[in-house]
Amino acid sequence: MIIVLRRGEAASEVEGLLSDEGLEYKRLVLYDRDVIVAWGPSEDKAAEKLRGHPAVELVSNVGSKLQLSSREWLGGDSVARIGNVEVGRDFIVIAGPCGIESREQVEEAVSAVWSAGAHVVRGGAWKPRTSPYSFQGIGLEAAKWLAEAAHSKGLPAITEVMDPRDARQVFNIVDGVWVGARSMQVTPLLRELGRLCRETGKAVLIKRGFGNTLEEWLLASEYVMLEGCSNVALIERGSRCWASVSRFSLDVAIIPVARGKTHLPIIVDPSHPAGKRELVEPLALAATAAGAQGLMIEVHPWPEKALSDKQQQLTPGEFKRLMEKLKLLLEALGRRMAPQPKA
Amino acid sequence: MIIVLRRGEAASEVEGLLSDEGLEYKRLVLYDRDVIVAWGPSEDKAAEKLRGHPAVELVSNVGSKLQLSSREWLGGDSVARIGNVEVGRDFIVIAGPCGIESREQVEEAVSAVWSAGAHVVRGGAWKPRTSPYSFQGIGLEAAKWLAEAAHSKGLPAITEVMDPRDARQVFNIVDGVWVGARSMQVTPLLRELGRLCRETGKAVLIKRGFGNTLEEWLLASEYVMLEGCSNVALIERGSRCWASVSRFSLDVAIIPVARGKTHLPIIVDPSHPAGKRELVEPLALAATAAGAQGLMIEVHPWPEKALSDKQQQLTPGEFKRLMEKLKLLLEALGRRMAPQPKA
Amino acid sequence: MIIVLRRGEAASEVEGLLSDEGLEYKRLVLYDRDVIVAWGPSEDKAAEKLRGHPAVELVSNVGSKLQLSSREWLGGDSVARIGNVEVGRDFIVIAGPCGIESREQVEEAVSAVWSAGAHVVRGGAWKPRTSPYSFQGIGLEAAKWLAEAAHSKGLPAITEVMDPRDARQVFNIVDGVWVGARSMQVTPLLRELGRLCRETGKAVLIKRGFGNTLEEWLLASEYVMLEGCSNVALIERGSRCWASVSRFSLDVAIIPVARGKTHLPIIVDPSHPAGKRELVEPLALAATAAGAQGLMIEVHPWPEKALSDKQQQLTPGEFKRLMEKLKLLLEALGRRMAPQPKA
Amino acid sequence: MIIVLRRGEAASEVEGLLSDEGLEYKRLVLYDRDVIVAWGPSEDKAAEKLRGHPAVELVSNVGSKLQLSSREWLGGDSVARIGNVEVGRDFIVIAGPCGIESREQVEEAVSAVWSAGAHVVRGGAWKPRTSPYSFQGIGLEAAKWLAEAAHSKGLPAITEVMDPRDARQVFNIVDGVWVGARSMQVTPLLRELGRLCRETGKAVLIKRGFGNTLEEWLLASEYVMLEGCSNVALIERGSRCWASVSRFSLDVAIIPVARGKTHLPIIVDPSHPAGKRELVEPLALAATAAGAQGLMIEVHPWPEKALSDKQQQLTPGEFKRLMEKLKLLLEALGRRMAPQPKA
Repeated sequence: MIIVLRRGEAASEVEGLLSDEGLEYKRLVLYDRDVIVAWGPSEDKAAEKLRGHPAVELVSNVGSKLQLSSREWLGGDSVARIGNVEVGRDFIVIAGPCGIESREQVEEAVSAVWSAGAHVVRGGAWKPRTSPYSFQGIGLEAAKWLAEAAHSKGLPAITEVMDPRDARQVFNIVDGVWVGARSMQVTPLLRELGRLCRETGKAVLIKRGFGNTLEEWLLASEYVMLEGCSNVALIERGSRCWASVSRFSLDVAIIPVARGKTHLPIIVDPSHPAGKRELVEPLALAATAAGAQGLMIEVHPWPEKALSDKQQQLTPGEFKRLMEKLKLLLEALGRRMAPQPKA
Repeated sequence: MIIVLRRGEAASEVEGLLSDEGLEYKRLVLYDRDVIVAWGPSEDKAAEKLRGHPAVELVSNVGSKLQLSSREWLGGDSVARIGNVEVGRDFIVIAGPCGIESREQVEEAVSAVWSAGAHVVRGGAWKPRTSPYSFQGIGLEAAKWLAEAAHSKGLPAITEVMDPRDARQVFNIVDGVWVGARSMQVTPLLRELGRLCRETGKAVLIKRGFGNTLEEWLLASEYVMLEGCSNVALIERGSRCWASVSRFSLDVAIIPVARGKTHLPIIVDPSHPAGKRELVEPLALAATAAGAQGLMIEVHPWPEKALSDKQQQLTPGEFKRLMEKLKLLLEALGRRMAPQPKA
Repeated sequence: MIIVLRRGEAASEVEGLLSDEGLEYKRLVLYDRDVIVAWGPSEDKAAEKLRGHPAVELVSNVGSKLQLSSREWLGGDSVARIGNVEVGRDFIVIAGPCGIESREQVEEAVSAVWSAGAHVVRGGAWKPRTSPYSFQGIGLEAAKWLAEAAHSKGLPAITEVMDPRDARQVFNIVDGVWVGARSMQVTPLLRELGRLCRETGKAVLIKRGFGNTLEEWLLASEYVMLEGCSNVALIERGSRCWASVSRFSLDVAIIPVARGKTHLPIIVDPSHPAGKRELVEPLALAATAAGAQGLMIEVHPWPEKALSDKQQQLTPGEFKRLMEKLKLLLEALGRRMAPQPKA
Repeated sequence: MIIVLRRGEAASEVEGLLSDEGLEYKRLVLYDRDVIVAWGPSEDKAAEKLRGHPAVELVSNVGSKLQLSSREWLGGDSVARIGNVEVGRDFIVIAGPCGIESREQVEEAVSAVWSAGAHVVRGGAWKPRTSPYSFQGIGLEAAKWLAEAAHSKGLPAITEVMDPRDARQVFNIVDGVWVGARSMQVTPLLRELGRLCRETGKAVLIKRGFGNTLEEWLLASEYVMLEGCSNVALIERGSRCWASVSRFSLDVAIIPVARGKTHLPIIVDPSHPAGKRELVEPLALAATAAGAQGLMIEVHPWPEKALSDKQQQLTPGEFKRLMEKLKLLLEALGRRMAPQPKA
């Protein structure tokens, strides 16, 4: 259960009561609120005692496995901040190459997505490849190229972290990181990123594993938030399904269903389920129409030469046309594309 | 392979050549074209001989398992006619109750969907229920109520046929039929509906089975077309997937992928994948944004009393609001909602 | 709920009580018991009144969707009779070609499976093919060849029925029929076969659809039993799964789980999930070890010339070796292969 | 491609040729062979030049994505050594608790599985739990208890490593580690374990992710082997499938199919797909009958009090009975249970 404390009130009495009931608990500051999350067999009993307690503003004990990620206690949508970009209010677009392959490539890519109106730049410094004989990424150096190129345009940059031993260095360079689909349940990594998020205020985005359930995805975000990180967003990128007619199946129902369960912003990556350039646009439009709060799209200055995901990265021209369609679509639905941050 | 014959030309020479090559073949009139579909091991050899033959306008021998349903030979999109409604040009909406439960219920439902702008009315006279202890539908009498109510508003009506022994009677009443997801590969039924379509000019719509592949779906339409029916459309209604967060998974990629393979119109049923009323709208908008040429939506005048699919049928008010959003969405994408047929 | 009546007792009082409670019901003779199945909102209330009623031996009201197929009311395993073969006691093997292609082929196949010890002969007279351009089966004539060949060896024969219009004629020829995976939820067919089973005492075997759940499979058997047929068995043949490394995924857990829910015998078809000859043996052994009560295996005298399922039909020699392994495996597990019926 | 060098021959000429052709390559000692694995666009050309080269014993260039894990180059089955136990020859059983909960619990568990004839002891020191509010394991201390208890009986011990930062310490304590399903594609972890395996000679077992393909599983083993580790085995533990009737779907076809592709030993974990105690035995027997080379089974001295996987851990008595059945089953199939290592 979640206990939101009143500002300025001493929490020690509440903590004492939780201890007495044999509950495990942790005190956190999340979304500018003073919060205690507590768990154990006697949750219901403790909740009853805490309701009406003068130090307690709210007790949320909905019997779900979800706690910090649950929509109930926060009431509405939360907002994640990637540098100067707010995720969870107006619609935002994260774009950039699958993998960072050279300084020139990443500069070209950043310039292209910036001029088309993207809000955040992405690029893989390390690549989680199925085969060890495929391009594995350049590493930390590439993250620096990415950040420099992005920052020069006034945009924040994000990259993937796979190894907890790299995490601190990466947080020193970029404005946020994402956890890849293949690492979504690697709890030591999630905890490490949560701690660094709390320390630095930088964002953590969590991709749903292609073999993971909605509940597992939300519980992955609990690992991050339980370290005191409230700068979290979720990225949907499709599932493996026998019926897939593209690389992965994008079941758009997950967007409204997830939004009903969690306050966290839901971003959709249409590039991975598409697998092919020509499917990125219909999937991007569909995800937006279904309620996604942003998109993450792979764009490469010259996709035919890409060292990974060659088939699915958009050209700068394709990305520009898609951005224009998205704007019209959002307006028709009574929503709007966020303004691009200024350099 | 498909051989399109020139108008007025004798086909006997072509047929003789196919026989000589040991091919099986069938001559058909489809989409106002004089067509021979031929199959067998020596297809390539025969195709070569027929190219340039004076009686032959086109030889389509693309090596796919798809023949009559294939986009290649027809060039563009085909159009199916349900009464006075054209499916495959402007966007159309089919709406009505899951099952027909009474004369009053179907009249109310038709009136509601008509006033919201629907183009075709749907209603189940027989219901393919998982359990024999659930409501099984009223049968032929219900189809008559449906057709009368629809026709009184100037709209065509369609219903599902499960038993080939009922098919002829049903074709005498309604303007088209659909093959349900559970019957999609029942070849004697497909053939019977194909024959009746050819005889009557009425439409056959084929739902994709929730356990069937895209190729199986298109090949089901081949069974129908091979009986001489060119009034065919396809209905997508989601797959069973381990990742489903709603009743079935709607992978919107199937819309552009199917459209790339077949000339047949692709309609999407958002009601069955949604399973719940509040998910119908996001799925309907997403399917439209992804390129669906129409929707089939369950609407009930008083869903809470429905004898089947109680959770997922829209109220008349919800349907009306959805129709308005769809119009705005289509315009933003440079497309348009078809005008409603006049009574 | 299920009400088992005492022998010789008048049932009219029980029926009156069910009517008074507003329940729908049907009286049947199943497994030599006088049974009433009743359903409706006031089941619990009626059940309470009927417990202890002098005409009533047992009231089974377990709140499951399953009624007649449920293990609860019958207590133990039921036995289905295909001609002189009992399914559900000792282990039995059904074998024969995928499709019946000629009189010679089916005679050779029957001779081979008989000499290897098979108990029942199978062969497809009509074939439910994905493509209309594939071999569709020979029809009724082929069923006659199958029955003659099998009966000459003292074995019963079974074939698939797809079209309810063929069913009566087929029941006049063979000793049982199976419902194919693609027709598993076609309720008019299930009802028709149930009626013919009751009339003739011949068996109905129901394959699980590759896209259907365990519950849907058991409920398909309810449609058949609700017509008064108690000669029913179930055939598992694998599911479509993204993880499939063969034609279909054979999740062996379904065998013990299904046996825990239903009294009906569970047969496994390893040929369709295998898809390839070399995988039939490991799947057959695994299914047997997991508790299958019999197997259905495709055997062709010369598989390389088969008109369907060429890759997965065993040669007579392969089938003979498999039968020997099965005998040893069953003995090690404290079970036994049924003796072959005598001509 | 794989190049096996002749003993004592200078490899420099081969390496020079590979460089000249622009291939990437790595020289390794694997399975007592001097091996070079090389990859790049001109593989075929280089392979041709190397065939017949005096320093080269074998060139394996089969065009598959698999290299070191591929059955082709090694010819037959490989053997992994966990302490004094050989995996890949006679049948072996790994058993022990899901999580290590106390010194007493692990000693009881080890004693029970040892007396029933298990060959290797397992136990989770860190637990990869879906929720951060579930028991997370005790950590390194628990691994020490496990190793002490196992070694006191003469058995080797294995545990799971999730965090590369823990790996070296764990290798100092136990005789092998497994990579959990959730970490199967975390390449920095795979590489770290591969390096420690090469240094220490201790084993690495890789569980297939429940959302990963067979190819991805084998390629995970390539990451490990490419660091010079030839003490590798694979553990199958089921997939997520819409059709699952238990915790995960165990498609037994993966056992023979994997064995046809790789030389690595295939172990099956029936506990996780079972999810329930009563399904462990049928799945264990089925996996063995389908060709598994060993099993990994969760056994807890008092499962009802377990802090994780309470439903699926066998009691010591259940495990003993299963071991007896396995022995009989193996004998019937002409195979045998390995003798237990002596203390």
